[in-house]
Formats: sequence, C-alpha cells, structure tokens
Amino acid sequence: MYSFKNDYSEGAHPRLLNALLETNFEQVEGYGEDCYTQKASAILKERIGRNDIDIHLLSGGTQTNLTAISAFIRPHEAVIAANTGHILVHETGAIEATGHKIIAVEVGDGKLNSLHIKAALDSHTDEHMVKPRLVYISNPTEIGSIYNRKELEQVSRCCRDNNLFLFMDGARLGSALCCEENDLELSELAALVDAFYIGGTKNGALLGEALVICCDALKQDFRFHMKQKGALLAKGKLLGVQFLELFRDNLYFDLAKHANAMAGLLREEISQAGFGFLVHSPSNQIFPILPDRMISELQKNYSFYVWSKVDMNNSAVRLVTSWATQEEAVLAFIKDFKALL
Amino acid sequence: MYSFKNDYSEGAHPRLLNALLETNFEQVEGYGEDCYTQKASAILKERIGRNDIDIHLLSGGTQTNLTAISAFIRPHEAVIAANTGHILVHETGAIEATGHKIIAVEVGDGKLNSLHIKAALDSHTDEHMVKPRLVYISNPTEIGSIYNRKELEQVSRCCRDNNLFLFMDGARLGSALCCEENDLELSELAALVDAFYIGGTKNGALLGEALVICCDALKQDFRFHMKQKGALLAKGKLLGVQFLELFRDNLYFDLAKHANAMAGLLREEISQAGFGFLVHSPSNQIFPILPDRMISELQKNYSFYVWSKVDMNNSAVRLVTSWATQEEAVLAFIKDFKALL
Amino acid sequence: MYSFKNDYSEGAHPRLLNALLETNFEQVEGYGEDCYTQKASAILKERIGRNDIDIHLLSGGTQTNLTAISAFIRPHEAVIAANTGHILVHETGAIEATGHKIIAVEVGDGKLNSLHIKAALDSHTDEHMVKPRLVYISNPTEIGSIYNRKELEQVSRCCRDNNLFLFMDGARLGSALCCEENDLELSELAALVDAFYIGGTKNGALLGEALVICCDALKQDFRFHMKQKGALLAKGKLLGVQFLELFRDNLYFDLAKHANAMAGLLREEISQAGFGFLVHSPSNQIFPILPDRMISELQKNYSFYVWSKVDMNNSAVRLVTSWATQEEAVLAFIKDFKALL
Amino acid sequence: MYSFKNDYSEGAHPRLLNALLETNFEQVEGYGEDCYTQKASAILKERIGRNDIDIHLLSGGTQTNLTAISAFIRPHEAVIAANTGHILVHETGAIEATGHKIIAVEVGDGKLNSLHIKAALDSHTDEHMVKPRLVYISNPTEIGSIYNRKELEQVSRCCRDNNLFLFMDGARLGSALCCEENDLELSELAALVDAFYIGGTKNGALLGEALVICCDALKQDFRFHMKQKGALLAKGKLLGVQFLELFRDNLYFDLAKHANAMAGLLREEISQAGFGFLVHSPSNQIFPILPDRMISELQKNYSFYVWSKVDMNNSAVRLVTSWATQEEAVLAFIKDFKALL
Repeated sequence: MYSFKNDYSEGAHPRLLNALLETNFEQVEGYGEDCYTQKASAILKERIGRNDIDIHLLSGGTQTNLTAISAFIRPHEAVIAANTGHILVHETGAIEATGHKIIAVEVGDGKLNSLHIKAALDSHTDEHMVKPRLVYISNPTEIGSIYNRKELEQVSRCCRDNNLFLFMDGARLGSALCCEENDLELSELAALVDAFYIGGTKNGALLGEALVICCDALKQDFRFHMKQKGALLAKGKLLGVQFLELFRDNLYFDLAKHANAMAGLLREEISQAGFGFLVHSPSNQIFPILPDRMISELQKNYSFYVWSKVDMNNSAVRLVTSWATQEEAVLAFIKDFKALL
Repeated sequence: MYSFKNDYSEGAHPRLLNALLETNFEQVEGYGEDCYTQKASAILKERIGRNDIDIHLLSGGTQTNLTAISAFIRPHEAVIAANTGHILVHETGAIEATGHKIIAVEVGDGKLNSLHIKAALDSHTDEHMVKPRLVYISNPTEIGSIYNRKELEQVSRCCRDNNLFLFMDGARLGSALCCEENDLELSELAALVDAFYIGGTKNGALLGEALVICCDALKQDFRFHMKQKGALLAKGKLLGVQFLELFRDNLYFDLAKHANAMAGLLREEISQAGFGFLVHSPSNQIFPILPDRMISELQKNYSFYVWSKVDMNNSAVRLVTSWATQEEAVLAFIKDFKALL
Repeated sequence: MYSFKNDYSEGAHPRLLNALLETNFEQVEGYGEDCYTQKASAILKERIGRNDIDIHLLSGGTQTNLTAISAFIRPHEAVIAANTGHILVHETGAIEATGHKIIAVEVGDGKLNSLHIKAALDSHTDEHMVKPRLVYISNPTEIGSIYNRKELEQVSRCCRDNNLFLFMDGARLGSALCCEENDLELSELAALVDAFYIGGTKNGALLGEALVICCDALKQDFRFHMKQKGALLAKGKLLGVQFLELFRDNLYFDLAKHANAMAGLLREEISQAGFGFLVHSPSNQIFPILPDRMISELQKNYSFYVWSKVDMNNSAVRLVTSWATQEEAVLAFIKDFKALL
Repeated sequence: MYSFKNDYSEGAHPRLLNALLETNFEQVEGYGEDCYTQKASAILKERIGRNDIDIHLLSGGTQTNLTAISAFIRPHEAVIAANTGHILVHETGAIEATGHKIIAVEVGDGKLNSLHIKAALDSHTDEHMVKPRLVYISNPTEIGSIYNRKELEQVSRCCRDNNLFLFMDGARLGSALCCEENDLELSELAALVDAFYIGGTKNGALLGEALVICCDALKQDFRFHMKQKGALLAKGKLLGVQFLELFRDNLYFDLAKHANAMAGLLREEISQAGFGFLVHSPSNQIFPILPDRMISELQKNYSFYVWSKVDMNNSAVRLVTSWATQEEAVLAFIKDFKALL
C-alpha cells in the first residue's frame, strides 16, 4: 500500500537529519537564540532580499496561524478568508479561540480577489459588526491552485487601499513557487504581503514553519506572543538547523520541484486518459474526477482521500505528492491506472 | 566554556536520533495516529500500570500546561499555584491568555501543601471571586525540591476533599523519580493526581512531553483542544518514536539518574567545602550560595545563572545538569572550584 | 418625524417607572439578591409552570447571549446559527471573543430546521474541526418570522438526539408568543429548549432580559459567569422591580399584543394595497416591498430602515412597532401611505 | 435595621428618576447616539475642561474595567495593580477572562507608588514573562484612602517614563474629589491619567459609569469594544439622562459631599471615643476597629460588614455611607454606639 494521502507521511530529508546528528552535542542557547536559528534567519533574509524583515521559526501551520493572527489584530478586528481557508474549517476554531471572527467568503477556486474583499468590507459598516482587518490567503490554496503575480498584486493593492493586513499561509509555499505556471519570486512576496510563512513540515523538515514579518507595525514583541502560545521551543535549534540546511543551497526548492514533478506525472497521465479535474491545480495536490469503480480498484494498492462525490458514478479524489514521493510508486500507480481504463 | 545553565542545551540522546533515522521513510498516519505514537502510549500505560488512562504527546511544557488547563476547567474557574510555579511567572501569561486566573500562594520551598490550598479556598467564597478548581504543582519544583509520597498524598486528599483537580507539571519528572530521596513510583502518580506529564525535552528528547490523563472527567475530546491550540503535530511520529525509544527499556530513567548523579557530585563537593544552599534540592538543579568573587572566577570557564543576591558578598547560583552533562566537565568544574577555596 | 426604526426608541412603561419610584429608597441587597429580583424570579417560574428552572436577570441581549453561551460550552465547542442570527452578524463578534466559532447555516426565512442542523453536524466530523454543541435560534427571528410548535418540537428533538443544547434568543419573545399565528405557550418552551430568555428591553422595560435555564447541566455557577462578564448589576433591583411589574399581571403580554396589533394595522393596509413582503413576519417587524419613490416620500415624515434593494425600482423596508407605538402615528402613516398610491 | 453595608442599597436620586420620567416617551436614537448622551458628554467635557477627550457611558464598574482594559492592551501585555485592587480580587477574573494577567503588588494602604511600579517592571524583563503595560489604580481605593496630587503626579510621571498607560477606577470618584483632604480637581485628572471613570452607580444613579479616555492612542474604535462586551445599551438614553442630570449643576458633587459628611460624623465620634482605624480613609468608607462585643450589639440594629479580625477581642468593621444615607440614621447609630461605651 503506497500513500498519496498527504505530504507529511514521512520524516525529514536525510540531510536535515544528518545536520541534527552533527550538531547534536553542541551546547547552544535555548528558545531560538542559538547560532543555527540566527544563521537560518540570516540566510532567509538574504534569499528574500530584505534585511528589514523579521524571521521566526515555529512548529506547525495551525500554531503559526493562531500566533500570528492573534498578535496582529485587536479584539474587535476580524479576518477575511476564502470558504476553503484552512483556518476556517480545519483548525478546530483556533483563530476564534483567540477571540477573532473569520468572515468567510464563498469562492470557487480557493483564491480571494479584490471583489471578494470589498464585498466583505461593504457588509461590515459600523460598531455593531466586527471590523475586517486582516486578509488570510494560502498559496498554494487548500485545493492546489496558486496566485499569479497579477492576482497577488491586485489583492495586495486592495488591502493597502483599505487598511487591511495581508497574511499568506505558505504551508506549501515551496510547491507554489516551483510550479511551472508560477511567475512569483520569493523575493517579491515580502513587498506584496505583510507577513507570510515558508512551510518546512510539508517540504522536507520534521517540523517547522518560517514566519516572515515584513510590515514594521507587526514586528514588535512577537516573541512574547510565541512564548504565550506555547510556540517557543526550548530546543529551538531543532528548527534552526533544519531551515539552515534547507536554504543553505537549493535543497528547499529542489524538494518542492520533485513533489511538483511527481504530481505532474500523475496529472499528465490522468488528463491524457480523458479525465477532468475538480479544480485547476498546478501544485503538488491534484483532484482528478474518476469513476467510482476505478477508485475502488486503485484503493487496493494506494491510499488517498476521496474528496467529494461528483455524480452518481464519479468522485473527485485527492492525490498528494511530496519531496519523499518515490518515482517508482508514481509509475506503478500510473501503470495500474492505465490497466483500469 | 561549559554550560550548566539548563538541561536543554544539547539535542537528543543518540538512540532517539537513530530511531528517527531508521523509521524516517516509513509512511505513517499523521497527527499522532501513527503506530509509533500508539506503541509509545501502550508502553507508557504498561509502565504506569494502568489501562484506563489517556496518553497524549505534546511538544513542550508551556504548550502542555496551557492546552491541558484550558481544557480541564470552565471560564470562571481558577488555578492554585505556588508563587514559584512556572505557569505563574515564566510562561508569558499563557494560562491567563486562555482566560483563567492563577491564584498565587507564597511558599518557601516551591511546594504546595494542604494548608496553602485551604487558605486559597477560604479566601474565595462567592461569585464575586474566581472559583479555585485546579491545583498546579511541579515535581521537581522549579527550584529543585521534590514531593515525597506523604506530601503528595496529603495534597491529593485535600484536592479530592475539595473538588479540585490536581495537575502535576513533570517537565523534569525523571529527575524527581530518580532522586535518592524519592519514595514515589511512576505507577503511584496516576492514583494520586488527575493528570501529569512526563517531560522528554529536558531528559533526552529533541522535544516532547507525554501528558497522562488519569481522571475520566478530563479525558473527553482532548485531541480537539490539542488541535485548537496548535499542539497536534502533522508528523506526530516525531514524538512517538522518541518516547518509544525512551521507554522501551530503562533509557528514560538511566538518563535522569545520570543527570542527578552529576548534580550530586557538584552538591557534595560544594557542601563539603562548607557552603550552604538556597533550598534543599535533591534533583538535577542545585542552588549553592557562593562568594561573588568566586562566582566571577567560575564564570570565566562555566556558564550558569546567578539566581539571587543573598547578602553583600554572596549570591545563590543555579547549576543544572542533564542527561548530556559530561562527567569530565563536572570534575573540571569541581577542580576549578576547589582551587578557589 | 415619527420613528418606526426599532422597538427601543422610548423609555419604559409608566407602571415600571412608578414601581422604581415607589421602591426607590428601600435599602435592599445588591447584585440581584434583593427581594424584588427574588419575587420576579418566583413569578416567572410560576408563569412558566416549573420550579426546577433557574432565572437570571441581565441587562441586554448581547450581554445575555455572550454570558450564556460562553458559560454553556467548552473551548472546542461551537454554535450553530442561521445566517441571519443576531450573534452572527450584529454583535461585533461577541461570541467569538469568548473563544467560540459560530457555524453559519444559510436559511431563507430566518428559521433553522433539523435538516440544517444535521448538515452542520455532518460536515464536522473529527478533531480537526470544531464540535457543534449548541443551537442558537431566535423567536421571533431577526426578520420577524416565528417558530410554530411543530417546528420547534422538530428542532428540539434533533438537538436532543444529537447531544446539542438548544438556546432561544427571546429578545422579542413577547411578540412571538402574542402573534395570532402562534401556537406555543410560554410554559411549553421550558420543555423544548435548554435555555431561553424573555426580552424586557424591547417590550416595556428600560433594560433587562430574563434568562431561563431549564437544563440542569447548564445551571451550575451561572452567577460567576455573570459577574465575570460584567453582567451582575450592583443595583440588581433595577431589573427585579421591572420584571416583577411586567409579570405580576398580564402587562408583558398586553404590551406585546399592542406592538403586534400596530404592526398588524400596517401589514393589513400595505397588503391590501397590493404590495408584497420580503418575508412572512407575523410579529412586530414587517418588511414590505415598496417603490423607491414612495419610500422617499414616506421618509419625509417617518423614519425607518431601508432593508434591501429588491429590484431597480423597489426596496424592502423594515417597519417596527412596539409597546409604545401610538395608534395615531400608525393611522397617520397609513393615511400618508394611501395618499401615495 | 439600617444598612451601612454599601453605597448601592438604594435606587437613584429623585431628580434622576424625574428626568427619566419626563423624557420617557421621546423617541431617540439607540445605543448611546441619543441627544441626552451627547449632551451629557458635552457637559462632562466642559467640566473636565478638555474637548479632546472621549466620553463613553457604561453600566457598571466591572463592565467598564474589562471593556477598557481589554481594549487598551495587547494579548501579551499585563496590568499592574495593588493587592487590594478591585479587578484583582472582586471581579471573578474578569480581566483574566479577556486574556490578561494582573501583576499584584503588595501595598499597605491600597495605593500604588512609583517604587511599586518599578519593582514590577524590574521583575518582568523578557519574553518569557508578560509585559507590564497598564497601571490600574482606584481613587478612592477599595479601602477608602485617596491619592493626593503629589502622589498621583509621581505615579503619572513613572508611567509616562516607562511607557505604561495609567487607568483610574473611579467607581467612587465623587467621594475622593469631595474629601476635605483632597487637593485634586476633576479637571486635573485628564492631564495625569490616560483614562478614568466617573462612577454614577455609587453616587446617585440607578446605574452608570462615565469613562473618560484622555490618551489619543486609546480612543480608536472604542464603541466596537463596548458592543462586543455587551456594554452598549439599546436604550443608552437611560445613562445619558442620568449623567446629564448629575452634572448639569453640582448635584454629583453635592451627593458625594453628603456621603462624605455622613462618614465624617461616624469617624469623628468613633475616633473621639478612642478607637483606632484599620486604615486612614477620608472618603465614604471607614474601617474602625471595635470590640467584638460592641460589634455584636450594634449588629442588632445596623447591618455592616465585619472586615477582618484584628486580635482576640477586636475586629475592624466597614461602615459605608452614600448620597442616600439619612442623617437621622447616622445620629441614631452614634447614640447607640455611645451607649455601649
């Protein structure tokens, strides 16, 4: 049984584990004040091309979302998010638990645009309603689609025109930036959003997300918020060593490219066989619509999620690839798939 | 420069890293539903000698404290803690951030007893005040002292008589249980407290605390709380593999014994040289009171915290040992110390 | 200019003010422990026909909603509400500020039914999502519709079958219970819902809502929650005296009937003139759809809200009547309205 | 039985009730946007001598404290308060329920000074602890003492020098400002504190506290916070009419003077009889230390709180007077008291 269920089934890229082994007995400062975390931060600033940004390493996506958002906005302020937004449906009310409402906007392809944002603003007009203050987007989105530069510029402009912070969930940012269709550079993000994070957990690390705070107003006292939310690891080196290894050369991007390439193989074959997809997703998650009997057959050797029923006889499934996905497993899947045509 | 500053300066015991390496490419379920976490849980239940307890693996102490306490009590309910309690002073208001007041009780040696608890109950009498509902203790305490069986039984009885939950912070539980003076067994704890945790971060793991919920009333839906607080790691295996390795034989206790033995060497020599201690601490933290000029000399080769000024010429320092403390470093410290007499 | 904007434009029914004057200099206990509050509570229990319920008097609707809901559910639990629900859109995130997500359900007429509730349950299946635990309904709804007995019984059964608390916002409960179409008795509510409140602010009082807690599990320590949320008035008598006066005879219901009768006059005339309504609303709020030019003319002498644009030339307006609405004003409005036909 | 238990046993000054009666049937805007609230605000600004301040009317002290403090500070920021501070012990954790820790400072006479504040700052040094950001003082304090100008200037300077907001709980502010020893003017407060409130509930109103926000940084969006916390009354006129009546001439101060004069009569006689007091309290609360047998005798005809046991045979009691205290009752008490000497 090979799993295409998600991109966190395996551990870490061996280089990261080796780096942990090699540095294991060095005595370093705790709570992210070690030299490795500092070097990782310096390298990330270099990669992003900005020295005036703050970098913080946290353990996971929900933790990063809740710590950042609750630090960034005041009690009466709210978040605007797409109805597919991870914080809206798959984080057990983590944002609401910090006191903030999320205003859900119905979108088809997982992506917010300026019209969505303006509609949310127009329906929140006075002190009897929450005040929208932060726009949450994910890139890639939770259903695999990505923002191109023009789209992100439009959202960014809309936010700035309306005094809204723009926060990008980058749990799978590597995959977005390494898509063939992508026209955004990591270095451009810092100019377009107020804060974003570079996901490590789903791209080669044991755990870890690198939060990048670009907007000066959001930087102050952030480590207090991390500590308060339980996000300051005693052995912060664990995160620093891994991000340093991911970014000291192109490993992070190479891993994302591999994940995308594996998804690409699947997409290509399924597409050529004449099947459609629930959504256009150029990243490492694809949602082909397949006959239910074919799905049942495939499930004998592969695990993956059946996403949604499309009609009486067909369903969309989710296939996820990662840095660790073996090409042989993909080829085997394709072979089995073809045999079912 | 050798550090006696804390017990989280190094990484993990090599056996844990090896176990991570060996299992690295296995595809497992996410979010703590993997086989390693399940096995770790089974072994811990066996060690504790109870099948009717729930085990959850979390990343760190603050995260465990805030997730557990906010899950256990209702909005108007409060925590009773010693004035030295970690949650009271060193967690950036993490408990208050979940909405709960901590009632501080002045104690000399870090340990709560039934008189302290009753005094807190007596001063909280009606709905104009918070309602005490949970007693937080640490074993060992934040200043190295430990509870013996009789003391813990007394606290436990007081809590049960007064409808209070008893929660034990065990960030350094290994050290407490392996002290020479200790007369408590791990297997007895589950009968005396409603929940406690077995700290991994400070005893050989990269990160990880094993929360043990003994009281049925506190078990329900705990994973919801973990997810909401950002405490459910996608790659939960990271914690499961480590705890499995720590407890599949006596490694956890062997590491704690080593830490205690190293502290014992220091305690013995300092004591024999005629110096006193701020508090009686049989665990892996000691607080000798030394002349300031001696402290300055020692700081040239060793890092440690100066804890508090005792008089014009003397201060208490904190020396912490761990599973990773090298005996040679301890002996070197002792030699340097003696040379200053 | 006469206002049909809302049902809280005037002060209190004169009998309530007189009762306040007459009892003004009596020295009584504070914080709702006075004899008037106790008598009001006793009379309400008698009216409801249950001795095993708890009554608490609070100042306003938002305060009652947030105090009750945050007292009733645990941190990971969520509220199900219609998309028109007051707590969802017009309370500035008051519920979320206490940490709870509200799951919005799209409904046409302001009323939840068991299918809506089951759909919300079906889409919240595990610990990665909030756990639905309380259903919030309003009677009458925010758009004037009311629940009949059969509808409420269905919702009630669905909640009990699914371990959900049922909470009814009764800010305008008097109007609902006094509608001609209504077939529910006050005394039946306590058997069908777990908690509800009887609105005073919008039916003759200066301020005040009487919260009725029917379900034993929700009663404990409720005054703690009131105090914590700033809802325990020092001079609680202010609320007790008013509710006592409203319920010592039929004043409360007489006032509601008057409000409904005034709305009835408006509804009847507008209907007879051939205009439709946005929603069927038998209570004291009506939403006729009128030509925009007629609206403009009416606004010269009457204030009311234009609710929503219906098409190029017509809009729905909201006309609200109350215990204080003068029949002459209604007749004048009707005369002016007819003159515009 | 005459009560000296508190200053909220009676209703409102008759002029306030009359004003409510006279304006009862006027249709006005809801939620504090009525003309009476606006006039009350204008008159208060005039009295305070500042146009650049914001005035908001809220229902009670706990509600004002929790709404203001949670609006003023960020999640990781904390409040410094005296150990006697009302928010610390008598508001059921209302501040903590909004997420903020209160740092308690032990003081003898209920008053904070700059040394206390600096000590709290000195012990909160990094991100592992909360960040002190607001100093909460009460004037008069909870035990009747008052701040003189020099003391308040010192506290104010200390706060400004250390980037701390200064917030004054003025639940009994009238009594403080009308003490014979007082040398502070209402008009001076706005220059010395960042926000304060003028208590109505305990000085002649049915309910109501006038919050004055002096510091620009604290003004924004305050009505959002009021709404979210359930503090925006639908019939806000109820508060506006009362404050307008209290401040359109000297009624507010006359009432406070009466309360103080009544306390003065008691203080004078008890003092002349040779008894001491627990604390020097020139305001409307006094804490004489009396023989227990005398207390028992007095309790036959008067109700008051026994505050604390002083020694085997003597206890401190609390006697509170108010705007409504009858001089005959005070004289009767004195007569009975003397008879017991």
